[in-house]
Amino acid sequence: MRLVVEGTPRELRTVWLEGDVVRLVDQRYLPFDVRIYDAKNFEDVAVAIEDMVVRGAPAIGATAAYGLAQAALQGLELKSVADRLRRTRPTGQDLFFAIDFMLQARTRGEDLVQAAERYAQEDVDRCRAIGEHGAALIRSGTRILTHCNAGALATVDYGTAMAPMRVAKDAGRRFFVYVDETRPRLQGARLTAWELVQEGIDHAIITDGAAGHFLGRGEVDLVLVGADRIAANGDLANKIGTYAKAVVARENGVPFYVAAPSSTIDFGLPTGAKIPIEERSPQEVLHLDGHPIAPKESPARNPAFDVTPAKYITGIVTEKGIVKPSQLRSFAGIGSTLKKKAARKKRR
Amino acid sequence: MRLVVEGTPRELRTVWLEGDVVRLVDQRYLPFDVRIYDAKNFEDVAVAIEDMVVRGAPAIGATAAYGLAQAALQGLELKSVADRLRRTRPTGQDLFFAIDFMLQARTRGEDLVQAAERYAQEDVDRCRAIGEHGAALIRSGTRILTHCNAGALATVDYGTAMAPMRVAKDAGRRFFVYVDETRPRLQGARLTAWELVQEGIDHAIITDGAAGHFLGRGEVDLVLVGADRIAANGDLANKIGTYAKAVVARENGVPFYVAAPSSTIDFGLPTGAKIPIEERSPQEVLHLDGHPIAPKESPARNPAFDVTPAKYITGIVTEKGIVKPSQLRSFAGIGSTLKKKAARKKRR
Repeated sequence: MRLVVEGTPRELRTVWLEGDVVRLVDQRYLPFDVRIYDAKNFEDVAVAIEDMVVRGAPAIGATAAYGLAQAALQGLELKSVADRLRRTRPTGQDLFFAIDFMLQARTRGEDLVQAAERYAQEDVDRCRAIGEHGAALIRSGTRILTHCNAGALATVDYGTAMAPMRVAKDAGRRFFVYVDETRPRLQGARLTAWELVQEGIDHAIITDGAAGHFLGRGEVDLVLVGADRIAANGDLANKIGTYAKAVVARENGVPFYVAAPSSTIDFGLPTGAKIPIEERSPQEVLHLDGHPIAPKESPARNPAFDVTPAKYITGIVTEKGIVKPSQLRSFAGIGSTLKKKAARKKRR
Repeated sequence: MRLVVEGTPRELRTVWLEGDVVRLVDQRYLPFDVRIYDAKNFEDVAVAIEDMVVRGAPAIGATAAYGLAQAALQGLELKSVADRLRRTRPTGQDLFFAIDFMLQARTRGEDLVQAAERYAQEDVDRCRAIGEHGAALIRSGTRILTHCNAGALATVDYGTAMAPMRVAKDAGRRFFVYVDETRPRLQGARLTAWELVQEGIDHAIITDGAAGHFLGRGEVDLVLVGADRIAANGDLANKIGTYAKAVVARENGVPFYVAAPSSTIDFGLPTGAKIPIEERSPQEVLHLDGHPIAPKESPARNPAFDVTPAKYITGIVTEKGIVKPSQLRSFAGIGSTLKKKAARKKRR
């Protein structure tokens, strides 16, 4: 993606390795300030994931891959580094997928810097393929609702739910995107809106509560979101608020699509019931930009994700094509990597 | 309600008349600062309603009643004052109900200050009766979800959706309230949470997106909200975000109740389809406490209310008892005031 860093336009990815430093676009300051976060060791990498310098399941996966490459360069014992990284955030699947990928590469005796670079490039390639497949859902005039950020910043580059929008825009189609602001961290208002501005795609930011209004009035033609983890039956975890959108979309006959690479699918998990839901600090709800927005005596609950059962999902846009949730397990085209992964999980 | 104003505890209503000044608890600064807004003329009153110094359909109604009493004291021509006040906010019904009430009082030759005081007292009485009827819905252990503020601050005193909670609390029942923060104006986090703190009722603030999560997990037993306008068939307009909660509640078999006085029912409107939905400034979405939260190039949409069809509503708690939406028109107990009002509307 193109970013202006300290006045100079640069073509950047969300995360990359320079020497033994893992460098990240610091998403806590966007869209107002473009800062680069330098993780000099695996603890810095872990904190970057925990504090949401980087977020979005695929981007977290790539960050962990680079973190393990860094640890290898620094001569560290990889298992304890992997253990530390696994404990950063529980819900997204790509983190665990990426760590397994890297540990397998080490077992095979591969160079881990090359393995991490391959992982990152494969993420970009998967996103581009998602864009090509998903663009078929978007015509001129289509009114899309999206939630949170599933754009370039949620991946190494290009995005998942936003990838089809990029392809459709490049194909000359003109459409409109309702962007849920996505409290508490406002990734929709801060990140997705910012990416849509860069792309020149028509959009409007709405509060999370307003999505139902537009769905109910027939002013949304397509809901398109990302995912943090997809169970084998198609149930998915995504940013808090996704579930209600899916229910209201089905109630109004609006198709609900999820865009996610195969690295987000957890074939070891039969249903979404056991996806661990991260509960983050109440301070995220009780404050905004450091300002309190509630009485100091009031507690808050802050689940960061919710689970949307497969029955509400019209289709899943993967790098291999669009499948129904029920076809996920038997989807032949999704490739041997996934099957191997499922087999490995079963053996555990 | 009890408020500490400049260090001194006072028993205040949301709005009252002192001499020819309409005084209001300025809700823009709560819960951090208790300020009193003095409206010295009808334009001040109109601006107080438009800028949400006062909000909540019943409170707006009482404010308009006092504004007309003030105009009478100041020897103004009431029709043009009424016209100005009618143009402040389009969605809530009580505003129009109160203005009609006052103009009829004038036609009967009544003292308008006394009429406004009677209007305000009747609002308090209606809320207390709603509390008595609605408390039957709340047992010890009940987990309630509410949205926006339908408390004392949304009425002259005591509240609508919050009135049953006050009665249940006084009866010694211990229950829990999930409070939607209610973007963009955060009336849940700022006002409802603050009222619950004053009452000593257990609660947690959640983001608007999180309500679906708790409904879907079976962690909510009752949804209880207020209303800004109820059509004759039971369709209702309430704060943006209400509709999605109602859909997700029904999907999960959770009862969805609305608490509203008869002054909120618009018997002249057959269904909710024609309730005018106010669209407020995009700046409310794009800023929080004056801080921008989105790219400066991004537009926003800001509908302040949505319409929940009657089919999602389990019951309406009125001052005369709890009715099903379908019983609203024929509800004998709701009293002659409503019937007269409906007849009057039909004659128009």
